[in-house]
Amino acid sequence: MKFKKSYELREIASIIKCNFVGDPLFKVFGMNEIHVVSHGDIVFVDHPKYYKKALNSRASVILINKNVDCPEGKALLISDDPFRDFNLLTTYFKPFKPSNISISKSAVIGEGTIIQPNCFIGNDVVIGKNSIIHSNVSIFDETIIGDNVIIQSGTVLGSNAFYYKKRPQGHDQLKSSGRVIIENNVHLGSNCTIDRGVTGDTTIGEGTKLDNLIQVGHDTVIGTNCLIASQSGIAGCCIIENDVTIWGQVGTNSGITIGSKSIILGQTGVTKSVQGGKTYFGTPIEESRSKLKELALLRKLPRIIKELRDK
Amino acid sequence: MKFKKSYELREIASIIKCNFVGDPLFKVFGMNEIHVVSHGDIVFVDHPKYYKKALNSRASVILINKNVDCPEGKALLISDDPFRDFNLLTTYFKPFKPSNISISKSAVIGEGTIIQPNCFIGNDVVIGKNSIIHSNVSIFDETIIGDNVIIQSGTVLGSNAFYYKKRPQGHDQLKSSGRVIIENNVHLGSNCTIDRGVTGDTTIGEGTKLDNLIQVGHDTVIGTNCLIASQSGIAGCCIIENDVTIWGQVGTNSGITIGSKSIILGQTGVTKSVQGGKTYFGTPIEESRSKLKELALLRKLPRIIKELRDK
Amino acid sequence: MKFKKSYELREIASIIKCNFVGDPLFKVFGMNEIHVVSHGDIVFVDHPKYYKKALNSRASVILINKNVDCPEGKALLISDDPFRDFNLLTTYFKPFKPSNISISKSAVIGEGTIIQPNCFIGNDVVIGKNSIIHSNVSIFDETIIGDNVIIQSGTVLGSNAFYYKKRPQGHDQLKSSGRVIIENNVHLGSNCTIDRGVTGDTTIGEGTKLDNLIQVGHDTVIGTNCLIASQSGIAGCCIIENDVTIWGQVGTNSGITIGSKSIILGQTGVTKSVQGGKTYFGTPIEESRSKLKELALLRKLPRIIKELRDK
Repeated sequence: MKFKKSYELREIASIIKCNFVGDPLFKVFGMNEIHVVSHGDIVFVDHPKYYKKALNSRASVILINKNVDCPEGKALLISDDPFRDFNLLTTYFKPFKPSNISISKSAVIGEGTIIQPNCFIGNDVVIGKNSIIHSNVSIFDETIIGDNVIIQSGTVLGSNAFYYKKRPQGHDQLKSSGRVIIENNVHLGSNCTIDRGVTGDTTIGEGTKLDNLIQVGHDTVIGTNCLIASQSGIAGCCIIENDVTIWGQVGTNSGITIGSKSIILGQTGVTKSVQGGKTYFGTPIEESRSKLKELALLRKLPRIIKELRDK
Repeated sequence: MKFKKSYELREIASIIKCNFVGDPLFKVFGMNEIHVVSHGDIVFVDHPKYYKKALNSRASVILINKNVDCPEGKALLISDDPFRDFNLLTTYFKPFKPSNISISKSAVIGEGTIIQPNCFIGNDVVIGKNSIIHSNVSIFDETIIGDNVIIQSGTVLGSNAFYYKKRPQGHDQLKSSGRVIIENNVHLGSNCTIDRGVTGDTTIGEGTKLDNLIQVGHDTVIGTNCLIASQSGIAGCCIIENDVTIWGQVGTNSGITIGSKSIILGQTGVTKSVQGGKTYFGTPIEESRSKLKELALLRKLPRIIKELRDK
Repeated sequence: MKFKKSYELREIASIIKCNFVGDPLFKVFGMNEIHVVSHGDIVFVDHPKYYKKALNSRASVILINKNVDCPEGKALLISDDPFRDFNLLTTYFKPFKPSNISISKSAVIGEGTIIQPNCFIGNDVVIGKNSIIHSNVSIFDETIIGDNVIIQSGTVLGSNAFYYKKRPQGHDQLKSSGRVIIENNVHLGSNCTIDRGVTGDTTIGEGTKLDNLIQVGHDTVIGTNCLIASQSGIAGCCIIENDVTIWGQVGTNSGITIGSKSIILGQTGVTKSVQGGKTYFGTPIEESRSKLKELALLRKLPRIIKELRDK
């Protein structure tokens, strides 16, 4: 996320009560996870394995648990627990705001858009024109929805990312400050769940249609004109390119890419990234032709073994 | 769907501004998809591959994109885009009616039936006697629910069919005008999604019990006394005959039939129709005995290959 | 469940209008299913196969359909239909109480806990401190929720168990009288469904985190600090020990145990109990190393068969 205004490095350091390296007046414009960080942002890193990546990233300020050399033109925030302090900053800049009313007064709802009964629409939500939000839908703060969108009943937009750090005493959640973006002409079925980005956006591209009971994880970007059938689950940080067809009950690992115009057959487990333009099946994922050949061979195997034994 | 009264052919043609072949006073009683069309109905067809099927169907009026010979006793509506015009007719005869209140005044709710808080019940819904509708359930317009039915929280009845036509510019939804029918003594779990028929009915037969998080697609007919376990998904246009048992996380292709008294084991993908009275497992579906034998053989294979190599 | 006060055997017999064997003043303290029955409880049994188990269980009163010898220190309730009469007792001691309001006045909600709009909170629910219940959540009667719990939108806690007895005329539901217990620091995602115990408790242990669209069946006990990813389904009567990681779209059979610190990979079907500390994959479940080896061998098989044929 980007802050509403810029802050000075010393102000940030005082929020989380830590030391810093760099000009106290160094301007800070936002904070983001390593995947989506950009110039002016704070990024955090707490494992030596990722120090170099974080220091060389687009981030301008590195929240780190070691007193390393500061890269030129950047600044450091030195913390004994960067994860905890990143969460503190999220809470400071994007505190959870409880609601007493079902539709926040700060929500902006476009002309011709219909909100059916029993919906919850959080603060600063923006919905375009001629969209329909069916009953019992929950839309969390800052979600952006385009024009001609249809969201069927019970769907949840903007719930927290499932993102935890393992500590000796249990799992510590990385607090989500990102958003959900639903572009024009998207249809979402009933009882779907679309998580917000951790610091960036979870995006469903123009014209894409989702069936019922579908999960879309945090920071995933789904392209335009995709079709996703019921009960499929797209994990966090995935890229689904344009014109992809995903049949029912497909699951994916996090972080994978599905190339444009791919077809993923039902119940497939997308265990790795796959090239566009092909049809896939099975868990682990294979091209569907290969997988179906293997399964056919397996059925013929008793006969083949007999033949070989009798040879 | 059947219209509330009959219309003349010329009236229908004027709604969609198209030419027609036949008696201008020809009576039209309804409109339906090819699977459920009956005498007096309009059907639409826009691909030469299906012209013959549509012209020979039970439909009395064929909405078609070619000036073909009109079968005797029937009529034609000639359109450059039958899909678009079928949608126009759906919108004309069954416009979406937004609701300002949670329980429509036109809903008919039987004696002894309990509606828990935060439900949405649409227009012209009929619910029988001694049923319980738990909190946060959404029931769309014209759904019919019988006696002694229990619907647990968060379930959605009557959401739109997931049915799209691919156009160069994106996916065009076939608008749904059908209904959901829940017969007597049915139990539905929490957070299930039951789509309405496109023009016909999605039906769950008497005494059938569904667990939580189950998807039932448009126009599917589930028989009597079936048991379906959690997270299974029945696609559109399926027939599940009576006394079928479906374990958890099963998925089906659209249009398949599962014969009476079948047992479908967990996580099976019902990739084709299967005969009744047997137990099935795996994706693609096989009789469970065969599938389990194959898997056992696969486990023994390293030993068998060694034996054959050493021979 | 335990009754709010003790009853005499003759009082119980008069509620269900059946004969009894034993002291009419014999004290009865509760009623429970065979798995969770304890001293002072009624248990029911209606099949000769289970008579011995029921008579030798911790139950003090056996509701049974045969006039057997009464074990010392116990009592019998003789019924032609113990299942029906067990349900009658459930209805007597724990009748369904319809609600006119969204948040029951008997619910106890701790300091600092936030309830977002459109939730349903039933009778006698207890929620601890500093928890957040997001919009459109349904919490059924008598659910117990700890401190620092987060429940995201659309989740349902305490729906009925999916537990039916097959009768010639259809399926007869065993009525649920149990509870859901959510311990401290648990997070539940959106649109999850957690069924109540039939007579005991469904428990999610301290610090465990569930993603979205997850099913947890009746009487299941999930330990502490587990992570369960989206769209997994844990059946009824399971034990998930501490520190277990379950990836997405995993399903389990009912009654299984997953040992502590196990990792269950995505889409696995947990068809039997598994030891702790290992990684598992596939349906039926195997150690993931074995399963992945089998799948690799299957891919190489055409080459191996050729080699053996050419030998």
